[in-house]
Parts: sequence; C-alpha cells; structure tokens
Amino acid sequence: MAKAFGFAATDASAPLAPFSFDRREPRDKDVELDILFCGVCHSDLHTARGEWGNTLYPSVPGHEIVGRVSRVGAGVTKYRVGDLCGVGCLVDSCRHCVSCNEGLQQYCENGWTGTYNGPEQGTGANTYGGYSDKIVVDEAYVLRIPDGMDPAAAAPLLCAGITTFSPMRRWRVTAGQRVGVVGLGGLGHMAIQIANAMGAHVTLFTTSPGKLEDAKKLGAKDVVISKDPAAMAAEANTFDFILDTVAAPHDLDPYLNMLKRDGVMCLVGAPATPHPSPGVFNLIMKRRQLVGSLIGGIPETQEMLDFCAKHGIVSHIEMIAMADINEAYERMLKSDVKYRFVIDMATLDKTAA
Amino acid sequence: MAKAFGFAATDASAPLAPFSFDRREPRDKDVELDILFCGVCHSDLHTARGEWGNTLYPSVPGHEIVGRVSRVGAGVTKYRVGDLCGVGCLVDSCRHCVSCNEGLQQYCENGWTGTYNGPEQGTGANTYGGYSDKIVVDEAYVLRIPDGMDPAAAAPLLCAGITTFSPMRRWRVTAGQRVGVVGLGGLGHMAIQIANAMGAHVTLFTTSPGKLEDAKKLGAKDVVISKDPAAMAAEANTFDFILDTVAAPHDLDPYLNMLKRDGVMCLVGAPATPHPSPGVFNLIMKRRQLVGSLIGGIPETQEMLDFCAKHGIVSHIEMIAMADINEAYERMLKSDVKYRFVIDMATLDKTAA
Repeated sequence: MAKAFGFAATDASAPLAPFSFDRREPRDKDVELDILFCGVCHSDLHTARGEWGNTLYPSVPGHEIVGRVSRVGAGVTKYRVGDLCGVGCLVDSCRHCVSCNEGLQQYCENGWTGTYNGPEQGTGANTYGGYSDKIVVDEAYVLRIPDGMDPAAAAPLLCAGITTFSPMRRWRVTAGQRVGVVGLGGLGHMAIQIANAMGAHVTLFTTSPGKLEDAKKLGAKDVVISKDPAAMAAEANTFDFILDTVAAPHDLDPYLNMLKRDGVMCLVGAPATPHPSPGVFNLIMKRRQLVGSLIGGIPETQEMLDFCAKHGIVSHIEMIAMADINEAYERMLKSDVKYRFVIDMATLDKTAA
Repeated sequence: MAKAFGFAATDASAPLAPFSFDRREPRDKDVELDILFCGVCHSDLHTARGEWGNTLYPSVPGHEIVGRVSRVGAGVTKYRVGDLCGVGCLVDSCRHCVSCNEGLQQYCENGWTGTYNGPEQGTGANTYGGYSDKIVVDEAYVLRIPDGMDPAAAAPLLCAGITTFSPMRRWRVTAGQRVGVVGLGGLGHMAIQIANAMGAHVTLFTTSPGKLEDAKKLGAKDVVISKDPAAMAAEANTFDFILDTVAAPHDLDPYLNMLKRDGVMCLVGAPATPHPSPGVFNLIMKRRQLVGSLIGGIPETQEMLDFCAKHGIVSHIEMIAMADINEAYERMLKSDVKYRFVIDMATLDKTAA
C-alpha cells in the first residue's frame, strides 16, 4: 500500500476535510500519478452530499484529474515516468462485454468503476478520486495530455469536455450544421467551443442576457434568451442537434420544436425531479429524437483531448486551493464560476496528514 | 366536376351519414379510382368527432383506400384504367422541399395534403377521403397494389402498415435483432408481422393475456404481460428496437429500460394527455433514444406494399358495410376488432345520393 492524502466527506452533511488513506501499490499494468490539478464537477458535490443516495463514505471526489506519472508497473507500455496524463470519470470496467470491446466503457454491461465511489472490479471496494495527492490507475484507463496543453485548464476536459464531445460525435455533428447548446456552465462552455471547432453554427440558449458576450467569445454565433417565447418560436425547425446541459427541470418542448426533421436533442444532465413530459406530437411530426448520453469511452476521450489540442480548446477555469473546496461548492450552486473550478493540488497541506 | 357520394360527419357530434359532393375532373396527371375498400383508422374517428380540434366539416374520413383506376389524365404514365391501386394518408405535398425531394412527403416542410381534412395545395380547400365511391389523386401519390394481394386486406397497409414499416426501416431493424411491439391493435398486428418478416425476434407487450395466441400466430416469439413488473424487469437491456403503438397515456420507463445501449423506442401514437415524463437517467445511462415517426413517404409506402406481398403479409380484417360505420366506431373504441375494420364500398347505397 502507498500512503495517500486528500480531502473527503465523511458523511452527507460534513464539509470536505483532510483525509489520509491508502492507494494500492502499482500493479503490473498500473500507472501512479502525482496529481497536479483536479477539476470540480457538480457530480462531486452530489456525491459528497449523498444526493444520489449511493455514496460510500468516506468519499474523496474528483474525476477531472491531470498529473505526472511518478511510478509505473513492469507491464506498462503506454506511459513513462514524467509523462503528463489524465484520468477522467472511470478507472476500470469489465473489459470483455460488447460495450467495453467497442471502447465504450462508460456503458459497460457489467458496471464500470467510477474514479470515485467505486466499486472496484472484483473486490467491490470503494475508490477514491482526485481531490488527493496521487492516484493509481491501470494504463488502459489513463489518457495522455497533449503537448502544449495547459494542464490545469485541461483537467475539466476529462469530464465536461468528453461529456459534450461524445454525443456530438455519436450523432455526427458536422460543418455547416446548426447546433444549439442549452445552458452556459461547465458543460455548456465546452460544448460551444467543441461544436464551433467542428464547424457548426452554434447558438446558445440561456436564461441570462449577461452571458451573451462570453458565449460569443467562446464561439457561439447566436444567443437566444430562452425565457423569450417569441425568440424561441422563431427558431422552429432549424436545428440539426441540440445539446441540453441543464439538469434543472425545464420544458423540453420549445427545444424539440426547434429541431429539423430527424434532428436530435441530447440530454446530458439528469434532473432531480422530472422535466415536464415532452410532447409526443413534437417527436412524431418531424421524426425527432430525444436521446441521452453519458460521458464517453476511453478511446474517444483521447480523441477529444487531441481534438481540443489541435483547435486550441481548453476549459476556462478559476483556480482554487484545496482548502477552499467547500466555499467553491457553495459558489458552484449559485453558478458563480466561469466556468470550472480547478484545484491546484500544490496547495494541499500535507502537514495535516 | 364529377359527382361523388360517400359518408360524412357534418359536425363533431353528428354520426356519419350519406353525403353527396364533387370531386375534381381528373387533371393531366390525375388518376381517378373507383373505391373498392377503405380501412377504418382511429384517425378517422378522431377527425369525424373533432377530437383534434382542427376538423373541417363536412368531413369524409378514410385514408386506407384500395380501388380500381377508372379514368386517367392525359399525362399519366404510371397507371392505366383497370389497375388496382391504393391511396394512403396523403394525396399531395409541396414537391420541392428537402423532405419532398427525399421522398419523405409526410414531413413536407410546407405542409402536406391529407387525404381528408385538406388543405389542398394552392387552394387550401378541404379534401374528402375514402368513405366514398371514388377519389381523384395525382399519380405521384398513388400506390400500386401488388398482384395477388387481397385488395380488402391490403387497404389497412396504406396507413397501419406503413406507419409501422417506416420506423423499422428508418432505424434499421435487421435479422436477429430483438424487436418489441407495444399493443396489439391495428398497428401492432401489422408491426409484429413486418418485424417478423424482417427476421427480427419479436416480443409483444400487452395488458391482455388473451392476446397470446393471436400474437404468436402473427409471428411474435414471446408475449410479455406489461402489467407484470417482474416479467417486464426481466427483459432489461435486451431490445434493439421497441415500437410503441399505444396512444393511451402510459409509463414509458419500463420499456426504455428494456433497450440495449443505443436502442431505440419509437412512438407512433400521440396521447391526448401526456405520458408520464420519461426518466432521463434511462436515456443517459445506455445512450437510448426516444423517437417518433409519422406514417411514411410515397416511395417507402410502395416498398412496404411490395415487401408485404413478398412475405404474404396483409391486415387481418373484419369487413363491414358502409352503413355500419358508426357502430364500428363504437366497437373500435372498445378495441373490439381483430384487427381492422374495412368498409366494402360495394355496400354504399347510392340511392341515397
């Protein structure tokens, strides 16, 4: 075992606090990373606070991890000590089902292993995430951070980036298409940049007129205020693809109505209480598709990183110290972040270990 | 003008009754059919009774029409007097939009012309359907009934058949796939036969244990009673495609949960009040798709007729006299029909004209 140190929630109501724990010694195919940066995702907060009802405590969140390889197992072939690497939402899966064989480990038929909140394959043990000084992961689930990419700003690509990139690839967003992005937060600000880099004409839908400038800087051609029914109706039947990043319950029909025939609306956020039921006529009359998508597989996560490097895309981040995580959660709940908090792990005070 | 005669509703509360009206003289590209048979679709009833709020009265329903060509315009090239032809749900469209150019006239961007309840292209006039002795339709919207197919049992293919065939083609149902059909009525009994002929392993979902025998005769391999939660849960993650033919509001989640990764659930019935809102997690966790589909285009309707002829598929019908239509509507509301009423137009008493 290797001693590790980070921040954990010990129960649903406890703030995150310093926590010492053990990581496994690197096995034959394992890579150990010294964590440099870890992005802060809404899922971290939901899990830390037990809001999905399935949290294993103590819980060390964090699945937008960038670090430098510190040790490798004897059988590791892809990475060497000193490489800059990433770890996203999953660190293992069954490796033999249809989805794993297709590189879609996030849909593993036998259940994948989350970077935190487990369960570890075989043992079922809990896993601890990136709010920590190091992590040990099988090289098959480790990503390479492309040369020249800012490592801190790359971290959120491992979740927010791939969650928006994957459905755009799956439903074949191509140059010249009209793509809508609902919501400008951690996911939305990645979606705008990626869709724009794919050559799409991107429209942001937001409740906040104040986001217009930012959206345009990120690459949106148009911004539509979603609270304006006339502005919304004017977009009817014009979109090829709409990515809805908003998890708060909201009416999907105004967006479905914007899709062309055969258009796709993809949900990547799951609301705590249901959205109003979408109108079936809206689906039938234009053969529209309402779909969901979950993060992305390992090969396409690497593809996304390389795509972002090529197009100069990173997350827009606000760096925080590890000790400021609880305050960051509160600000995140108020959407008071542009657009992702990233923990600088150099701020982790190991004297508390 | 040519004198025509049929049955019409004169307002939402009136039963259908004899009605004399005019058809246009066949124009250059028009085909006139002497109607032999007309299927009875739920849409007929909804329209006659004004339940969709858009009925133009008097309303002559009927869009599952089989007849023999009695006259043709000078420019008609596809059909000759004496040919056995069909007319389905649409008799015209704009002919120049993207969807029309792709042969998907049912999604015409400028609005297609229903076989009944109009509006006619250009004039906006009402159109009168197949509960009548003759109809005049541009040859581009006329189908050929394949040789050897029972003309009465072919009639329902023009709506019930194509409505189920089209989405199975669109989402590429192929041999060996597992296909679910929800509901065994006019649409469901066509869907089972067509999916089976495509080589799929077909499962019927029904609330009625009494339908097991019929479903198996139609080609279903399995029947699952949808009121049995354990039986439903046992099918989780096993279906490639589910066609939901039930328009009554019902919970979609048990069906969404049955889809494999990337599976498609297609709705072809629109409920009068919304279904319970489908769970977003069910979509996200397996990248599932909830979609809608509307009848089918003219080329694929011909393809469907030829496919059905090749595979010996027709509708299972109960023949009725024109004068029995109001009684048939009452029975249809109680699902007391196996599986489609077809009006024998030889029973139309023209002495009332």
